[in-house]
Amino acid sequence: MDEIIKAEILTIGDEILYGQILDTNSQWISDVLDRAGIRITQKTTVGDNESDILRAFREAEDRADIVLITGGLGPTKDDLTKPLLARYFDCPMEPNPDALRQVSEFFQSKGLELTPVNELQATLPVCCEVVENKLGTAPGMWFHRDGKVFVSMPGVPHEMKKMMTDTVIPRLHEVFETAVIYHKLIKTIGIGESWLASKIQDWEDALPENIRLAYLPSLGQVKLRLTAFGTDRSVLEEQVAEQIEKLKPLAGNFIYGFNGDEIQEVIGRMLCDQCCTIATAESCTGGYLSHLITSVPGSSEYYVGSVIAYENTIKEALLGVQHQTLLDHGAVSEETALEMAAGIRKRTGAKIGVSTTGIAGPGGGTPEKPVGTVWIAYDDGKEAYARKLQLWKDRDVNIRATAVAVLNMIRIRLSKTIEVTE
Amino acid sequence: MDEIIKAEILTIGDEILYGQILDTNSQWISDVLDRAGIRITQKTTVGDNESDILRAFREAEDRADIVLITGGLGPTKDDLTKPLLARYFDCPMEPNPDALRQVSEFFQSKGLELTPVNELQATLPVCCEVVENKLGTAPGMWFHRDGKVFVSMPGVPHEMKKMMTDTVIPRLHEVFETAVIYHKLIKTIGIGESWLASKIQDWEDALPENIRLAYLPSLGQVKLRLTAFGTDRSVLEEQVAEQIEKLKPLAGNFIYGFNGDEIQEVIGRMLCDQCCTIATAESCTGGYLSHLITSVPGSSEYYVGSVIAYENTIKEALLGVQHQTLLDHGAVSEETALEMAAGIRKRTGAKIGVSTTGIAGPGGGTPEKPVGTVWIAYDDGKEAYARKLQLWKDRDVNIRATAVAVLNMIRIRLSKTIEVTE
Repeated sequence: MDEIIKAEILTIGDEILYGQILDTNSQWISDVLDRAGIRITQKTTVGDNESDILRAFREAEDRADIVLITGGLGPTKDDLTKPLLARYFDCPMEPNPDALRQVSEFFQSKGLELTPVNELQATLPVCCEVVENKLGTAPGMWFHRDGKVFVSMPGVPHEMKKMMTDTVIPRLHEVFETAVIYHKLIKTIGIGESWLASKIQDWEDALPENIRLAYLPSLGQVKLRLTAFGTDRSVLEEQVAEQIEKLKPLAGNFIYGFNGDEIQEVIGRMLCDQCCTIATAESCTGGYLSHLITSVPGSSEYYVGSVIAYENTIKEALLGVQHQTLLDHGAVSEETALEMAAGIRKRTGAKIGVSTTGIAGPGGGTPEKPVGTVWIAYDDGKEAYARKLQLWKDRDVNIRATAVAVLNMIRIRLSKTIEVTE
Repeated sequence: MDEIIKAEILTIGDEILYGQILDTNSQWISDVLDRAGIRITQKTTVGDNESDILRAFREAEDRADIVLITGGLGPTKDDLTKPLLARYFDCPMEPNPDALRQVSEFFQSKGLELTPVNELQATLPVCCEVVENKLGTAPGMWFHRDGKVFVSMPGVPHEMKKMMTDTVIPRLHEVFETAVIYHKLIKTIGIGESWLASKIQDWEDALPENIRLAYLPSLGQVKLRLTAFGTDRSVLEEQVAEQIEKLKPLAGNFIYGFNGDEIQEVIGRMLCDQCCTIATAESCTGGYLSHLITSVPGSSEYYVGSVIAYENTIKEALLGVQHQTLLDHGAVSEETALEMAAGIRKRTGAKIGVSTTGIAGPGGGTPEKPVGTVWIAYDDGKEAYARKLQLWKDRDVNIRATAVAVLNMIRIRLSKTIEVTE
């Protein structure tokens, strides 16, 4: 019962190994396994190479109870996973009637003809059970031998995710009894890792033996992960909650949420609760701020719209920025940022307007306003506020860091339970 | 000379293993090594666990010539990499004067005081050489023993990248003579993997022995990767170029670029060449389309701006969509999409206007217009064109797929060398 079930993730494909695509699957799988109380002990990526793949099968089986494999199942010739699994489990391949039916149904539902290459995909090692692929043509495979489970899934993210959620995780719970690991993420924004570490050092030193802390920094944010080990989930939950209460006086202002909370979701909930609407006027962020806000389901409740004013004429025509302001202070200035925020608020009728204007780079910098100079502003009709950011040399980093800074500015303003005019 | 130099990438950290952050470093490192002619044979991720880390060191050293390690070097307590490297290379740790000077200079340049925790970071295994970290406080470490190289770098992406580019890659070239591997990516859009595979099967079957093909599908796109092995780079380049010429008649219309080309960059170049400007009117994509366009450095040359009209009132007020159109056909309709595209073109003075309107989900679907129903439109004053997409149930996928479809629509229109009014 209390034995820890160990899993490894094996990703197969030259495209991942050579860095031509980013492996997002294994992060997703890790997260799902972790929630299922299964300890991930290693992730491995090997290329489309027979001996490497077979060695990886063997080593993973030696170390772990569960081996989850993605990739190498497509309809094309560089895909080796299926024949090598047949060889590893020492069984022949034959057309599988279930798999053939599922592939045929998938094609019918799309109104398409089955191609010979797709028929070949339904030929599987006879010792596996089919894991249905509801969103694609490559069936998954489930192998069970000597108490160990191998699952092979396609590398296409949405196909793999559907398989994991619908079939693989429920079946793993049937086969294994899982130990108790409890994680909680505490999400902070607006403070660097070293500064946060200094603030909370005494608290960290006093954590109980069975709770571990990790710092997970990202752009403008630091996540603290508490991991508790034990036998009773509710005891662990209580222990962790107690520690978080002790942490709050030390890091309270910087904490915006927990676990899966994203800053844009937290702001969305605040806007909903305060019956507030928001609109954005973006220059240097070029739509990324709006994208973050609208990535939240239901954001149409509080997000009205945006003007992205890349050209100065658009700042005047669609946001009402004064021509003289642009002449006197330039597009990247406190004055322009404030007029943009006020302008989008008035033009859209939103209660809050926010803005970004800056030099994202790589071009456009001057000695006075180097690349990375950014102004952001907030305006709710009663209160207006602008802030200068001095960021980096990297365009993408500057776009993302600016958007995060605006979201944090909104959070700070909204947590004062601002009053809005109208 | 012709022996292949093998490298492995080892990522250390529970945060990667448990899926709490996405590992983007190892993709970047792979890509850089690949360009350097070094063959990556495995990527491994292990957690903050002594015995797993030591085993991973040993196994990687057995298989590879070069082991590149990221993670576990921060100022905080969960970081194990440094003491374990000292143990693995059997040497004590001492304060390193070079590292201390570099950390001090880094803090001075930011106008900050050195903290004791940062001083500790300059204590290193005596058998390593320091790899300077110009963007952070954790020094890199270079170990060289029995012809094998271990390099340890921090997990913070921009710090690691700077170290790799400035120091690690040049030094690897000094130590190893690298074999010749040549890759070329051929990027297609608007055709699925199976369909593309059927179209080019004869070409694929006739590829020379030393050239391998891989299919790399992603949302709305399929990349073809040709990998050539040999001894002379210029011979390989010529061989691959010859194959691409043979491929073009089969897949020509779907090919938009090569290697690092992104569809938004290709469109940017087309717009520049044709002295065209563009503006976007977004509803369901919520800024993501603009974000893609403006992620390209220099996009201010051709991108004018955008209106993101989430609320219908904004579609009327800022884009001039007729109230009656919204009443008669709804926001998600051919008519609205066309009026949005025409509206943004006129309001911004751009030569081309494009638009998106649809139901991204998860809410908002009806039997007539289910989640995933999207209209996109193009208008250049002379020609106007709309297209319906029937996409998926997933909000994020729908946002991304819609943006890609619009970019492809622009590409198709621009490759006809369209004439624009004004």
